[in-house]
Amino acid sequence: MVHKIALVGIGKIAVDQHIPAITNNPDFELSATVSRHASIDGVESYTSLDDMLEKRPDIGIVSLAIPPQPRFDYAVKALRAGRHVMLEKPPGQSLAECYALEKMAQEKGVSLFATWHSRFADSIPAAKDWLKSRTIKRFRITWKEDVRRWHPGQEWIWEPGGLGVFDPGINALSIMTEILPYDVHINAAKLEFPSNRDTPIAAHLAFTNPDNAVMDAVFDWRQEGPQTWDIDIETDQGEMKMSSGGAKLSIDGKSIVEGSDHEYANLYAQMHTLVQNRASDVDLSPMIHVCDAYALGKRITIAEFEF
Amino acid sequence: MVHKIALVGIGKIAVDQHIPAITNNPDFELSATVSRHASIDGVESYTSLDDMLEKRPDIGIVSLAIPPQPRFDYAVKALRAGRHVMLEKPPGQSLAECYALEKMAQEKGVSLFATWHSRFADSIPAAKDWLKSRTIKRFRITWKEDVRRWHPGQEWIWEPGGLGVFDPGINALSIMTEILPYDVHINAAKLEFPSNRDTPIAAHLAFTNPDNAVMDAVFDWRQEGPQTWDIDIETDQGEMKMSSGGAKLSIDGKSIVEGSDHEYANLYAQMHTLVQNRASDVDLSPMIHVCDAYALGKRITIAEFEF
Repeated sequence: MVHKIALVGIGKIAVDQHIPAITNNPDFELSATVSRHASIDGVESYTSLDDMLEKRPDIGIVSLAIPPQPRFDYAVKALRAGRHVMLEKPPGQSLAECYALEKMAQEKGVSLFATWHSRFADSIPAAKDWLKSRTIKRFRITWKEDVRRWHPGQEWIWEPGGLGVFDPGINALSIMTEILPYDVHINAAKLEFPSNRDTPIAAHLAFTNPDNAVMDAVFDWRQEGPQTWDIDIETDQGEMKMSSGGAKLSIDGKSIVEGSDHEYANLYAQMHTLVQNRASDVDLSPMIHVCDAYALGKRITIAEFEF
Repeated sequence: MVHKIALVGIGKIAVDQHIPAITNNPDFELSATVSRHASIDGVESYTSLDDMLEKRPDIGIVSLAIPPQPRFDYAVKALRAGRHVMLEKPPGQSLAECYALEKMAQEKGVSLFATWHSRFADSIPAAKDWLKSRTIKRFRITWKEDVRRWHPGQEWIWEPGGLGVFDPGINALSIMTEILPYDVHINAAKLEFPSNRDTPIAAHLAFTNPDNAVMDAVFDWRQEGPQTWDIDIETDQGEMKMSSGGAKLSIDGKSIVEGSDHEYANLYAQMHTLVQNRASDVDLSPMIHVCDAYALGKRITIAEFEF
């Protein structure tokens, strides 16, 4: 059975990732889009979600690729209309609203998938398996990219709830929480805020962990030239390096996984499985770390930043 | 059976509240204190928790009245030693560490009580009951106090993890989450930070709720003169006012509860019940709202603040 799906929000991430992932998956049919201004050739388009929900009761799945700030209201509408819902990361602008959506999906008996696309990078299963039987001595996330390149003109990322550099950083945290064999928590954080912005452009997080390893994360949105999405791990039995956001993995300098970008393809495959099983997948741990970083982080105000 | 209890942290809140509450409760015996500098006449005192745990295996309960930043490490030690643990509010400096403590207490089969003393104010049951059958139109928390009076010289409240004005504000949120008949979430927040401090001195929070009521909270730590800890609620069937932090309650201008301060007495009575039943009580919803406020709040920098 082919599942009809509506994609809400036709911005950069929809065009780059969601649309190819849906159209290349034989289990799905992209049956409608919802966007105030954009549309896709050959796909029925709506400017209002209410309208789409009313006119297309045959569309069982709604995928939300809109910014986090309005996501809750859209998700509530889709869930109330009995549709399965897929949320881009971060799943909302607050933890409490995510818990509310989880409860609502449960009550309606539909699937809710709070996606973390980086968890579907090619090297994740191998990394997780390798770490299981090792003691970690050093764990360092380095996530440095150029905000001008990846979020050109996207003002929402600087607005309250937009998460700033945590928008890419939460991808690293979603990998960390997936591959580590135990729970960790932030014990110190330093956040750099441009004086004209409400969200940070850089962050440093330190984590308490049962191995007493030095464990930290450096996020920076000012990296020009080559972009870095690496996780370096020293253990009692060798060193592991994840790079390209988890696509590649090497152990003791030897390449183990040379993947490429299948994250969104894997994400939609997982959504298919969830819908088939009427199951949900809502793990908020990456977002809990971000909220904790905000709550206990030292704030440093730096120079203004303009796109 | 009288339960032996050790109190860790002999600061203002211990002297004002914990010690009288313990010593006036016939179910408990204050058997030891742990504090680097302070002690109580007639009570065995330790300067190290490790030392107390080792020398007094007969003390089954540890109550932590220390600041939130070091609380996790102390709680872990007590739980690992198989003791029941009572946490002052907020239960930690991060959500992730609170979830970790909850899991650890479960594994050790001991009671963990993340206390919210304001939930034990005299008018809470009546307020909760009255709200159950009403539709809320307006809900306003006004929590305005003088930080110099309540936290004299306590630098930790201004340090990362100290929560600033959320330290009293979280009391109001603990009442709100207890008396409301449904879950709510913050959709907007404004936080005022003194330029020389890491935590806010004032905050305004707005909440999304199923009644579509105007629901907000105003926290301010600069209130001299009379202090205000009020919650005003307009409903479709009358108005309710809670004042004095929940000790007093009036409905349509008529006094219903004229309580006084029994919060900590009630708190220790509840701890006794939990320990008797080997049950835990860890509701993190007030802290989730605070973390959400930090994560999505607009930050405003204001003039320096000194005690």
